[in-house]
Amino acid sequence: MLNVLFSAKPAAWAEYEAPLNAAFASAGITANLSLDHAPEDVDYIIFAPNGPVSDFQPYTRTKAVMGLWAGVETIVDNATLTQPLCRLVDESLTNGMIEWVTGHTLRHHLGMDTHILNQDGVWRDDSFPPVAANRPVTILGIGALGAACGQALDALGFPVTGWSRNAKDIPNIRCLHGDDGLREALTGAQIVILLLPQTTETIDILNADTLGLMAKGGFVINPGRGPLIDDAALLDALNSRQIAHATLDVFRTEPLPKDDPFWAHPQVTVTPHIASTTRPETAAEVIAENIARGEAGEPFRYLVDRGRGY
Amino acid sequence: MLNVLFSAKPAAWAEYEAPLNAAFASAGITANLSLDHAPEDVDYIIFAPNGPVSDFQPYTRTKAVMGLWAGVETIVDNATLTQPLCRLVDESLTNGMIEWVTGHTLRHHLGMDTHILNQDGVWRDDSFPPVAANRPVTILGIGALGAACGQALDALGFPVTGWSRNAKDIPNIRCLHGDDGLREALTGAQIVILLLPQTTETIDILNADTLGLMAKGGFVINPGRGPLIDDAALLDALNSRQIAHATLDVFRTEPLPKDDPFWAHPQVTVTPHIASTTRPETAAEVIAENIARGEAGEPFRYLVDRGRGY
Repeated sequence: MLNVLFSAKPAAWAEYEAPLNAAFASAGITANLSLDHAPEDVDYIIFAPNGPVSDFQPYTRTKAVMGLWAGVETIVDNATLTQPLCRLVDESLTNGMIEWVTGHTLRHHLGMDTHILNQDGVWRDDSFPPVAANRPVTILGIGALGAACGQALDALGFPVTGWSRNAKDIPNIRCLHGDDGLREALTGAQIVILLLPQTTETIDILNADTLGLMAKGGFVINPGRGPLIDDAALLDALNSRQIAHATLDVFRTEPLPKDDPFWAHPQVTVTPHIASTTRPETAAEVIAENIARGEAGEPFRYLVDRGRGY
Repeated sequence: MLNVLFSAKPAAWAEYEAPLNAAFASAGITANLSLDHAPEDVDYIIFAPNGPVSDFQPYTRTKAVMGLWAGVETIVDNATLTQPLCRLVDESLTNGMIEWVTGHTLRHHLGMDTHILNQDGVWRDDSFPPVAANRPVTILGIGALGAACGQALDALGFPVTGWSRNAKDIPNIRCLHGDDGLREALTGAQIVILLLPQTTETIDILNADTLGLMAKGGFVINPGRGPLIDDAALLDALNSRQIAHATLDVFRTEPLPKDDPFWAHPQVTVTPHIASTTRPETAAEVIAENIARGEAGEPFRYLVDRGRGY
């Protein structure tokens, strides 16, 4: 019998209790899933950053902390956390992100907003977009989500460049890395998509300097993390038309305050952190399978490297 | 030396003359491309329905008529046309259509308009779309364009059903045909895409009866031909919310008149026949290669079956 502590916001318990118990059963795990095990009795913690646990020291026999979120920046610097930490890598989260990123890339590529916003009886048939093959897309961050989005955009004909801190090799994506690679990846890019983790090295990675490398009139799409962008620099780049439009799903403060200039800017589309979401059924299966791996003596999947920060 | 007559609207000559001569040269064809050969001297006609030629009888030695358009409904019933007629099947036309159809399918699937149209400071994060796997899409018409769009949507995870008059077998698309197949294809469909040719049998194929088979609150996307839809029935279905939204690129009259109710309807997006366009460079290559086939004694590609009408 494993004692599994669920530590997330109260509403999540109603969504997750049944799917987790079902997933444990089908993974062959006998578990006592609860909101209030005594810390010293807990074998695994299922964790979201908005739940009650913030001090991990009393959890002396806990074998791993299983994140309910893909991002771990709010926990990775927690000095009390000495147990292994696993991110959530959920196929439905990945698929949802592919749909959102592909949809908004095509929206900007095709210039859809001209028609969505102007149903005024004027037949505007005087301009056609280039074919996707002539629209270079750059994805900053080619982990599980970024690589999957890049593959989907490649399949639609876009030339895709991906950038990561360390060298990667992903089929059909031109992979660059390091500081020089970042400049090369952004130079001439018409659409830039941010899917980096938030670390001290990625904060403000899109700033006045790097926005200036993009093709004039380019597009920025941020489903990653708010602090990846220097907000003031982006507003300047929008006002100078260096950037034609930005679609932003994540922000330094969420919900984005009503008086934030992004809401009112005609070249910005704010979306409310909906690019993708964890779905309880598939997330529960991923977590149960990972616990089963640990119990079988196999290495955990999706283990966070605390030194790198993701 | 082949005499090739170019018959389209005057603006097209400026776009096509150079690409066609370049494509002839690279296909090894010695051609005299002109706007005004004597009819009895013409070997091939490059033809758009809005050009000067409408009586094909004087073109006694013409070996084939090469359409500049994918649709041939304005010429197929021309009784004076006894020469072989080829449609234009152009890869850039196909790619453009894939981009437009995939983009608008994702737009409706993700509910993008809610955010594009409402940048009012309200953080609307209370609803998520289903994953694509739970969003059945039906494509009426699975010729070159429809099949390519279906494959792209399948790759994104949508369950795709395709319907055609005669039986087809296309990988990853559930293919149905005939009258019973039409009803089965539409039943429960959440997104219906029209890519049928316009024939006497396809006019008004989406009508009060067939719209009623779709899932309540579904979406209609028409990049095919205007007359495929019974406009009054669609307006009724929008008003009753049987159809949540229609994105229409083609109409019975184009440009769509300013007073047409589609322009003013809040659940309709009118786009000005831009779903895809022929690009002169690639179209010229397709036509030159087809003429080279004819001269080498090989069968023409993309030959129109005059009996079927496409």
